[in-house]
Amino acid sequence: MIFKEGDYILLVEGEKRYVKLLNKDFNLSLKGKTIKFEDIVGKRPGEVVKGFCLLLPTLEDIILYGFKRKTQIVYPKDSFYIAFRLGLSKDKKLLEFGVGSGASTAVFSQLAGEVWVYEVREDFYKLAKKNWESFGLCQNVKLENMDFMLADLPEEFFDAVFVDVKDPLPYIEKVWKVLKAGASFGSILPTTNQVSALIKAMEGLFCDIDVLETLQRHYKINPERLRPQDNMVAHTGYLVFARKRI
Amino acid sequence: MIFKEGDYILLVEGEKRYVKLLNKDFNLSLKGKTIKFEDIVGKRPGEVVKGFCLLLPTLEDIILYGFKRKTQIVYPKDSFYIAFRLGLSKDKKLLEFGVGSGASTAVFSQLAGEVWVYEVREDFYKLAKKNWESFGLCQNVKLENMDFMLADLPEEFFDAVFVDVKDPLPYIEKVWKVLKAGASFGSILPTTNQVSALIKAMEGLFCDIDVLETLQRHYKINPERLRPQDNMVAHTGYLVFARKRI
Amino acid sequence: MIFKEGDYILLVEGEKRYVKLLNKDFNLSLKGKTIKFEDIVGKRPGEVVKGFCLLLPTLEDIILYGFKRKTQIVYPKDSFYIAFRLGLSKDKKLLEFGVGSGASTAVFSQLAGEVWVYEVREDFYKLAKKNWESFGLCQNVKLENMDFMLADLPEEFFDAVFVDVKDPLPYIEKVWKVLKAGASFGSILPTTNQVSALIKAMEGLFCDIDVLETLQRHYKINPERLRPQDNMVAHTGYLVFARKRI
Amino acid sequence: MIFKEGDYILLVEGEKRYVKLLNKDFNLSLKGKTIKFEDIVGKRPGEVVKGFCLLLPTLEDIILYGFKRKTQIVYPKDSFYIAFRLGLSKDKKLLEFGVGSGASTAVFSQLAGEVWVYEVREDFYKLAKKNWESFGLCQNVKLENMDFMLADLPEEFFDAVFVDVKDPLPYIEKVWKVLKAGASFGSILPTTNQVSALIKAMEGLFCDIDVLETLQRHYKINPERLRPQDNMVAHTGYLVFARKRI
Repeated sequence: MIFKEGDYILLVEGEKRYVKLLNKDFNLSLKGKTIKFEDIVGKRPGEVVKGFCLLLPTLEDIILYGFKRKTQIVYPKDSFYIAFRLGLSKDKKLLEFGVGSGASTAVFSQLAGEVWVYEVREDFYKLAKKNWESFGLCQNVKLENMDFMLADLPEEFFDAVFVDVKDPLPYIEKVWKVLKAGASFGSILPTTNQVSALIKAMEGLFCDIDVLETLQRHYKINPERLRPQDNMVAHTGYLVFARKRI
Repeated sequence: MIFKEGDYILLVEGEKRYVKLLNKDFNLSLKGKTIKFEDIVGKRPGEVVKGFCLLLPTLEDIILYGFKRKTQIVYPKDSFYIAFRLGLSKDKKLLEFGVGSGASTAVFSQLAGEVWVYEVREDFYKLAKKNWESFGLCQNVKLENMDFMLADLPEEFFDAVFVDVKDPLPYIEKVWKVLKAGASFGSILPTTNQVSALIKAMEGLFCDIDVLETLQRHYKINPERLRPQDNMVAHTGYLVFARKRI
Repeated sequence: MIFKEGDYILLVEGEKRYVKLLNKDFNLSLKGKTIKFEDIVGKRPGEVVKGFCLLLPTLEDIILYGFKRKTQIVYPKDSFYIAFRLGLSKDKKLLEFGVGSGASTAVFSQLAGEVWVYEVREDFYKLAKKNWESFGLCQNVKLENMDFMLADLPEEFFDAVFVDVKDPLPYIEKVWKVLKAGASFGSILPTTNQVSALIKAMEGLFCDIDVLETLQRHYKINPERLRPQDNMVAHTGYLVFARKRI
Repeated sequence: MIFKEGDYILLVEGEKRYVKLLNKDFNLSLKGKTIKFEDIVGKRPGEVVKGFCLLLPTLEDIILYGFKRKTQIVYPKDSFYIAFRLGLSKDKKLLEFGVGSGASTAVFSQLAGEVWVYEVREDFYKLAKKNWESFGLCQNVKLENMDFMLADLPEEFFDAVFVDVKDPLPYIEKVWKVLKAGASFGSILPTTNQVSALIKAMEGLFCDIDVLETLQRHYKINPERLRPQDNMVAHTGYLVFARKRI
């Protein structure tokens, strides 16, 4: 594989990372060095040019450095875990509402057979669509610009649901209805008050409720002086999981 | 879906979880209650019988409660993240060596197109094979009972590698050879000394090296008294990621 | 210093720790080994006898392994920080209510000039008194077996307060009154709901409110295989600090 | 107590904190507001002026916001724990070498009877001295501008030691000699490699070795939206404790 015009490329220089479209105007300056289109085209992934390592972006790179955002995204440290925890696989249909910038759907759609997504805000709907199209993602996703509450859906239809809205409470009953018996529920919530309210609302409707948070700590890359980095992300959100009780 | 003889079932009672094969002899006692085959057969997932919530096990349940183990497994909190971080997808070929009980391969094979696994110990080879067969997993996996060093493999063949052996150092050069340019490298190591040694050995051969650890903290499920559980897992292993430099 | 009858001694064997009174009946069995009074008397701290390291207990050892408990104690990882954070020093008077087993007072009284403690439950009052007397601690502490709400106290009297009761809310106004202007407030609360309620009740009465939690992770002592221990304490309580606003 | 010229004052505005000497030129601007000498003088602690809460600084405030620094300090989250963990009290003599900016000594000297400190670098020696004098701290501290290795000290003299130098190994044997039998050892080290080297060097000379790290996570102060802050300090140093074995 050789980099050519129209490819997306990941450039890594020290702790800096960029995901960029490689076109004739490409031009990136850092620490007094400038790397251009003609420095990259014809090179292979893994080559180092002017101190930049040239690579193909993974899904994580695309989400973190390629997607445009209008809101807080579900970070890979969370969405990667959620995707498997929801039991997604090619024979499963996932319901999602609250699409944001489309970051979590881009992850879930890799594992699920189909993802049905509802987003009430038009700006988020368009942003997610554009993010996915730019990187050729989410071809098994059906995205609707409407309130999930207004969607006409059969009962016991979905194998799993992921809810990412400010207040999930008004949706809980309808979510319960459209899920198959025993299906997986997942949500991410930034505050403890929301977690308390949600797990209270789930009583009787769901079983096997689990609340957890995931922390990642990165290390400095120096074999003779191995130590954690000075700072870390302290919080993204609390993850809530459960299974539909009947 | 209705539970019938031969199904695997997940039983959840409070914080206790069991993955069991449902056959005529099935019999589980807990807190003075006994649940039997005839209590379950014909029931649907999500039903609660004698305080046990009856569910279909997810991949995480199967790995944690269904797989037999002879060694420390790669925990879902780690393997779920690794799978996506390695950039696995249906058009990618993953190399893995050190199969252990087969837990990590069961995760990676959900996302990758093919997984080629080398395991030198016959007991691990058999255990992984049996774990996968019991649960119908890993049909896109080619497992060999041999030392990876003896495998005859073409250069620039794999899109990603996951190394889970006590001492990865002797393998680094061969790993480098069989990876495509810019391909993803992942490993899990329990000690800081191993991390230091590995990242030192990778210098010049790999770029974009990252070392991190993942922690999960679970909460007690009480909306009026929300708080973390008393204890948590403090360590499984350090994750090392990198990309092949050429 | 030489161990003699009547001394308290700390015995350390691997990860096991014991604080014991050294009398003629002393007798401790572990891993098939028995250590007795006559093995210890006349020995010096730092000597190793039958695999037991003989030491003088520090305050932390006394609290964790010497004190009798009827309830959850404030752990040293928290109380050591609280003591300094409250700005305690020899010219300062601390108010405390909710004494429990007396563990936090034993720490605070090392730094403060005087500590005035109110405990409504007689069993806790007696337990704390006994714990302190056994180890010769808390001679600058005035302990009352009464409800803090009934105590007749002058206004603007204390330099700092530490509150460790299930529901601090009914006490907030009186606490405010007996504190000097700008004095330090500290509390420990196990649940997020309690923290929300407390900081809401403090609005307008206190400034510089801070909520935090402290985590400690211990490592296995092996220089060639340095790594965290498998498990850790995930939660003791949330610490709430503030200053009296006037 | 009323603020007057020459006092040190802590000003808190939201998450901003300042420790300043109150003199006639005092002048602090923040968010378009300016607070001056005449706004403060005559006010009491706990008063809020132009959005600034006026307070007396605690030792933690002094160390974090009042001390001048030329190097990484031992943070209160660590030094507060170390002080008690070393078993310091008014009848104990502490040895310390590597004084840095004097932050850890300022803490330890509150609990210990005497602290003897050795600092080889003249700039650090002067900086610590000045920091202490400015705030009237460390009057029970004997600070020498010399290499600890050159100090003429009796054997079995100190009750505890705290070592904060880049490479503690060359000092271990002398440290051992000047400590009383069973005395407490403490050190802080930023890297895992240093921890491995130190605990290897301590084998046979010390018992009851413990390695740990302390993490603090702060929360946003909003009772209706309680959640951790977005970022936290991920690492300051590994704490190593032990007791002199004889």
